[in-house]
Amino acid sequence: MIEQRIRNRAYFDKIMNSDQAALLIKDGMTVGMSGFTRSGDAKIVPLALAERVMKSGEELKINLFTGASIGDEVDGILAEAGIVNKRLPFQNERKMRNKINQGELLFIDQHLSHTAEQVRNGFLPPIDVALIEIVAITEEGYIIPTTSVGNSSIFAELASQIILELNVAQPLGLEGLHDIYEPGMRGKRQPIPLTSVEQRIGTPYIAIDPEKVVAVVITEKSDSTSAIKAPDAETEVMAGHLIDFFDQEVKQGRLPYNLAPLQSGIGSVANAVLHGFLKSDCTDLEVYSEVLQDAVFDLMDAGKVKFASACSITLSPERAAEVIPNIDKYRDKIVLRPQEISNHPEIIRRLGLIGINTAIECDIYGNVNSTHIMGSNMMNGIGGSGDFARNALLGIFVTKSTAKDGKISSIVPFVSHIDHTEHDVDIIVTEQGLADLRGLAPRERAKVVINNCAHPLYKDALLDYYNEALKRGGHTPHLLEDALAWHARYLQTGSML
Amino acid sequence: MIEQRIRNRAYFDKIMNSDQAALLIKDGMTVGMSGFTRSGDAKIVPLALAERVMKSGEELKINLFTGASIGDEVDGILAEAGIVNKRLPFQNERKMRNKINQGELLFIDQHLSHTAEQVRNGFLPPIDVALIEIVAITEEGYIIPTTSVGNSSIFAELASQIILELNVAQPLGLEGLHDIYEPGMRGKRQPIPLTSVEQRIGTPYIAIDPEKVVAVVITEKSDSTSAIKAPDAETEVMAGHLIDFFDQEVKQGRLPYNLAPLQSGIGSVANAVLHGFLKSDCTDLEVYSEVLQDAVFDLMDAGKVKFASACSITLSPERAAEVIPNIDKYRDKIVLRPQEISNHPEIIRRLGLIGINTAIECDIYGNVNSTHIMGSNMMNGIGGSGDFARNALLGIFVTKSTAKDGKISSIVPFVSHIDHTEHDVDIIVTEQGLADLRGLAPRERAKVVINNCAHPLYKDALLDYYNEALKRGGHTPHLLEDALAWHARYLQTGSML
Repeated sequence: MIEQRIRNRAYFDKIMNSDQAALLIKDGMTVGMSGFTRSGDAKIVPLALAERVMKSGEELKINLFTGASIGDEVDGILAEAGIVNKRLPFQNERKMRNKINQGELLFIDQHLSHTAEQVRNGFLPPIDVALIEIVAITEEGYIIPTTSVGNSSIFAELASQIILELNVAQPLGLEGLHDIYEPGMRGKRQPIPLTSVEQRIGTPYIAIDPEKVVAVVITEKSDSTSAIKAPDAETEVMAGHLIDFFDQEVKQGRLPYNLAPLQSGIGSVANAVLHGFLKSDCTDLEVYSEVLQDAVFDLMDAGKVKFASACSITLSPERAAEVIPNIDKYRDKIVLRPQEISNHPEIIRRLGLIGINTAIECDIYGNVNSTHIMGSNMMNGIGGSGDFARNALLGIFVTKSTAKDGKISSIVPFVSHIDHTEHDVDIIVTEQGLADLRGLAPRERAKVVINNCAHPLYKDALLDYYNEALKRGGHTPHLLEDALAWHARYLQTGSML
Repeated sequence: MIEQRIRNRAYFDKIMNSDQAALLIKDGMTVGMSGFTRSGDAKIVPLALAERVMKSGEELKINLFTGASIGDEVDGILAEAGIVNKRLPFQNERKMRNKINQGELLFIDQHLSHTAEQVRNGFLPPIDVALIEIVAITEEGYIIPTTSVGNSSIFAELASQIILELNVAQPLGLEGLHDIYEPGMRGKRQPIPLTSVEQRIGTPYIAIDPEKVVAVVITEKSDSTSAIKAPDAETEVMAGHLIDFFDQEVKQGRLPYNLAPLQSGIGSVANAVLHGFLKSDCTDLEVYSEVLQDAVFDLMDAGKVKFASACSITLSPERAAEVIPNIDKYRDKIVLRPQEISNHPEIIRRLGLIGINTAIECDIYGNVNSTHIMGSNMMNGIGGSGDFARNALLGIFVTKSTAKDGKISSIVPFVSHIDHTEHDVDIIVTEQGLADLRGLAPRERAKVVINNCAHPLYKDALLDYYNEALKRGGHTPHLLEDALAWHARYLQTGSML
């Protein structure tokens, strides 16, 4: 049985248990781990490491680089054990987030397409150990990733040592789904030859030097499943606004009947909005995204999406139970790429994607905060939203118009942190409506954002702010002494009202 | 003589004077004009139009799209005449800026690589008239641009009508310098084949449909020259910091001896910093930029720069008088491309540029404001700084640590407008020092920015703000009620102190 998975005999000598493998990770090391949006992460070696350190009390700190978020259990216990010095480029686990916001753990929030470049150029500490979950080892000794590619290929290529977690709970049907392409050093590389969503440009395996592999650990621990919420009445309305908008764009001849390849960010709102296409007349849709959530599989099953490219698959428990064991069924409809390729500006711009990402808050001029609560506290990270919004045909941000039972307005005079500037935001959608900002100057944008997207509870206050600012003039009129007053009020009183 | 310049006989019938040509531009039209950083702009037709309207008092408003800034005289009189409805994607003329900030003229501030895409996709009003300065017309009826390419090729391709300003003051030696490449529609295009700075991938002319040309106007009006100031003691110190940094990068093996292709933004500081390479040991440098200012020609003459690619040439009066008439001398060392190519994320990322751009202000976490004075008033525009900073190997921002005789600190707790987020800013340089932000989390960044870059006048106040914010915690600690207080104080008292 295991011979099906380990097809190169030399690797059998490297099999050990997770405790033994965890001993190979030493204090001060930088560990590059597989895992993107909770999928395909190495699981039992980091758990063994954290548990040992918590028991022994030994001094051990590592830098932890991943693709994006890893399973809650893993990031949680690593945070709890206090063994992470620096974490990048994304996370979304509560305990780790708290440590970050308390300053006990340093987090670097990066565009997900940037990490590989920075590692390659030596702008980050070198990868001592790559810790990669795999589904199989080929005869040549190359490795097959599981449900995500993330940064696994660049970590494995550049690491001094490699530890493999061979996960027998991940179906062998995943083999053949991946397309690994290494662009090479900036300044010496060729164009990335990808010109269509379904095209394969690389290899179905990560080619590694087998000599670097120091441990193979067998596991059968499943991926964490996604915690996204089902679409609700408000997200359905938001999806409706967007479908109406696309209908208009098709009618005006600005988009073809099957639109353009869709990207949708991680999370409930983006998933719900994508879900809205089930009710649309669209067919032959394509997806070129970083993560495939439930909605994409629902759309494939409904015959709406004909092909989906991403760097990970992250599903709800129900959909994971259906999809993952039967992944063969989607073999001719899916490709998984390194995140550097799924999120590459070159490809996003060339393919002309429609990028749909979630905002925490937007200001009246169209600047977007994707990461921080009230300016100071990190939520999850910018993820790929910047890679996509900047380079997409249409950079779309979705958010409910209020949060915390109306105590927070998601449309504010001035966002408390900016991740996407007015230059990169084409469309804002809330349950109140859609603001099409293309070709609008700031003074035009403000009116459209307030009138179309703000909640009635806050609309007058936003108009008051804007009209008062207008009296002072400016290209982007502001009252700097009041610009962040809504946030300050919330922090003091628990409400922006 | 004119036959040397107009080699297709059909064009002779289209020659008219500027007043006649100006009559072809009607109320409500969108005009796509040549011109980038004051160079290669159409000059006498817009002047004739503005003068006529000012005299006649007729009702006439146009949308004016260009490459970037055009000559002061032209933007100035167009603003004065009140005939511009919308202006994009960049400007830097005083009268126009005032109108923008007074809300009398709508300005859309765009990434310079985005405009062509938005026109191509019909997200902006269609181009009614392209108004292009040229140096010659080929036998086929194609046109040769002058000292800039800007957006001329996409405007000419998509416009309903074309008006040509044949400028006999621009030397015929410019012919052969241009390389016009049209990527085509997003979703249907191939990789842009450019893999090195000096490579030519297109044609030396803009291929147009001669039938669309409705007027050829002969002119001999020179380009506006640049108003950049000579390097001063402070900019020399800044250049020194940067040269030292590059030396270290070479020593550490992160950059080769000739660094990476350099990009430098428009303006005195960026030009001065580039000038600093004259005193360095660097040789075989390459430039891949949007504009070639004095410093690049000085570096070429000194044998430091071996090749320079850009989309325009903008020089001081002295250097213009030396360089432009003798442009033949640089024929094998220069190529001028459309701004979509000079600023394309695909190329910038592939070549691994070093991008050096000017900031108006930076915050302690590394967010950069490139466009707005005290949050509300537009200065010039983001230009290409975002195209470069986001996609470069190194995104570098330079600014003097204070402005207005010390009354403004360029390092602030929270920038009053954000154009470049912490995710895109690698290095900040002031005359005080250099902050290398690579691989640093926000709490690390704050210390480095304050300690290395802030002026002593403001250092303590910045540290106080940061330390007070630290008490409240957060990934990016802020005191939102005080975050913009420095700017508000300046607006009230005329000083941040």
